[in-house]
Amino acid sequence: MNDLTDFRNIFNPVLEDLINQKTSEFLESTNDPFIQDFVLYSKNLITGGKKIRPYIAYLAYKAYGGTDNVNAIRFFVSFEIFHNFCLIHDDIMDRGTLRHGFKTIHTYILEKLKQEGRIGNLEHIGNSQAILMGDLLFSWSMENIDNTKFPKENLLQAKNYFYKMVDEVCLGQIIDVDLATRTSPSNELIEEKTRLKTSRYTFVRPLEIGASLARVDYNSEEIFENFGTKLGFAFQVQDDLLDLIGKPEETHKNILIDIADSQHTFFTNYIGENGTEEQKEYLSRIFGKEIKPEDQAEIQDFFITTGAIDAGKKRIEEDISSAKTIVNTLNITNEYKQKFLNLIALIENRKN
Amino acid sequence: MNDLTDFRNIFNPVLEDLINQKTSEFLESTNDPFIQDFVLYSKNLITGGKKIRPYIAYLAYKAYGGTDNVNAIRFFVSFEIFHNFCLIHDDIMDRGTLRHGFKTIHTYILEKLKQEGRIGNLEHIGNSQAILMGDLLFSWSMENIDNTKFPKENLLQAKNYFYKMVDEVCLGQIIDVDLATRTSPSNELIEEKTRLKTSRYTFVRPLEIGASLARVDYNSEEIFENFGTKLGFAFQVQDDLLDLIGKPEETHKNILIDIADSQHTFFTNYIGENGTEEQKEYLSRIFGKEIKPEDQAEIQDFFITTGAIDAGKKRIEEDISSAKTIVNTLNITNEYKQKFLNLIALIENRKN
Repeated sequence: MNDLTDFRNIFNPVLEDLINQKTSEFLESTNDPFIQDFVLYSKNLITGGKKIRPYIAYLAYKAYGGTDNVNAIRFFVSFEIFHNFCLIHDDIMDRGTLRHGFKTIHTYILEKLKQEGRIGNLEHIGNSQAILMGDLLFSWSMENIDNTKFPKENLLQAKNYFYKMVDEVCLGQIIDVDLATRTSPSNELIEEKTRLKTSRYTFVRPLEIGASLARVDYNSEEIFENFGTKLGFAFQVQDDLLDLIGKPEETHKNILIDIADSQHTFFTNYIGENGTEEQKEYLSRIFGKEIKPEDQAEIQDFFITTGAIDAGKKRIEEDISSAKTIVNTLNITNEYKQKFLNLIALIENRKN
Repeated sequence: MNDLTDFRNIFNPVLEDLINQKTSEFLESTNDPFIQDFVLYSKNLITGGKKIRPYIAYLAYKAYGGTDNVNAIRFFVSFEIFHNFCLIHDDIMDRGTLRHGFKTIHTYILEKLKQEGRIGNLEHIGNSQAILMGDLLFSWSMENIDNTKFPKENLLQAKNYFYKMVDEVCLGQIIDVDLATRTSPSNELIEEKTRLKTSRYTFVRPLEIGASLARVDYNSEEIFENFGTKLGFAFQVQDDLLDLIGKPEETHKNILIDIADSQHTFFTNYIGENGTEEQKEYLSRIFGKEIKPEDQAEIQDFFITTGAIDAGKKRIEEDISSAKTIVNTLNITNEYKQKFLNLIALIENRKN
């Protein structure tokens, strides 16, 4: 049995219902076909993710004794809506053209504007409309939380963590955007980005929110912080690794995008810290430039022969192993310890 | 006595305290001086507005019997924080360079990036960071509302209106962005934009939120809708008029920006509907193009001789007069009727 798949089967219809309902409400206020079209298009993307954050929150909710599955699922739908708000804004910043196998929203709108022969700086207009679609989703995620029914204290504590999560993911993204403008950023700043954008956002805060909706006094903050940090770093280094040597037919992404996009990762950082002068020079020559298909194999080889790939794999292994150890110290039943271990295994073996 | 000025004297310190507190909390998570600098810079802008929305909500709260001034002011601080989120994102879309007499955030960041010799598409980076600063403010506005203490029913109804307001102002801005890409948009779409972005956002929703925090059963929705719509249209046509013939030393803005920015207004629309072929052709020649200082007087003359300016002034006068009539039908004390009439007079006579 695959717990995450079972979860999605319950979760996805609730998410889809909510998005359908909010979209219809929203579109009642305009009968302009152009605007209606791109708002409806956005629905495709919102339901396409892996649902890892809501699942983690749900696991924590159940592990800490939560019983109101209906309201819990409803609350965790907001993670996914909020996540899509982040992705829409991130995709504008990163100039991403594909998301979950669909054209990104700003790309879709830009193409429609061109088709219709609209006037003005259409790229800027497409980005502007996508900013607003993102803003809407943020609001819908908060509204949906307010429509759940939980004891006041639990809801207050959960929302408190949610607001911390928003601050952290925004700051993480601010650092990420800033990193790309620096030729040699500090290792500290790169780790800070991963801590905020991945560890806290994907693991620590969902765990805390799930647990506090179940029990205000769950009091495991420090354990969640350690667990989430380990798992978050493993997850991020995996992402960086998949960009280097992942299989496009499995990741549904092109490879070596990070280098072309001037993204400082575990691997570029490894060269910066451990590489020879010659290796550093090679990296700075290819960094931030488009990579031709015929040069891909050479660049992959470079990261292998420098030892960067092995170091990354070792880091992933260590962090995954630490996360497993922490699970066994959690004050939850063996059944839920096993579910958390299954989740870690899923992350350990992910191909995209 | 000027009620709005008195209100600001109480309101501004609460707003400033909250922004100082949230900014400090936020900056605890990073010691990067570049990021700290632009987050601190953003504080300047947030406190610089006219505070008209929180004041309107406060008037409604008091007029409908509200007595918890401390929590009411605290709630209405969120209008101003939310408004600055909107302005930051709008300024990116409109490529605005000045706001409340300060450089807009994306402009400020762009200049700093250039000064530091950062790499990449710095204009895009500046916009990206400004998107994130806006996102943060949205979150802070919601968090601040959750920290107010009101009876559950009142808070729920007020937040319900708040979420409607967010949907409306986003849709209004989506329409506004879209209008600039059309050569001859329908009058209906232009009026729809004004209804959402000005009437609902600046008047109707703040009134409803203020009243429902005081009394869940205030039940004056229809009157607020009429009142807010009239006042909103007057307000918007005034804005359009100030862009045409306002005095820069009073408006703190350049004139004739709307035309250069391809903005369809009451006045361009008047030409489209009532102008001769020759006048329409003249308008389409200047529309969307930068206007040289030496051509300004001729363009101002054009809007006078076509009768557009007089029609606009008449529309403002009629709507202001209707709003005054509606105030007298509100189920509130004469003292508060007078305060609303003073507010209308303030709007009627505004120079910026």
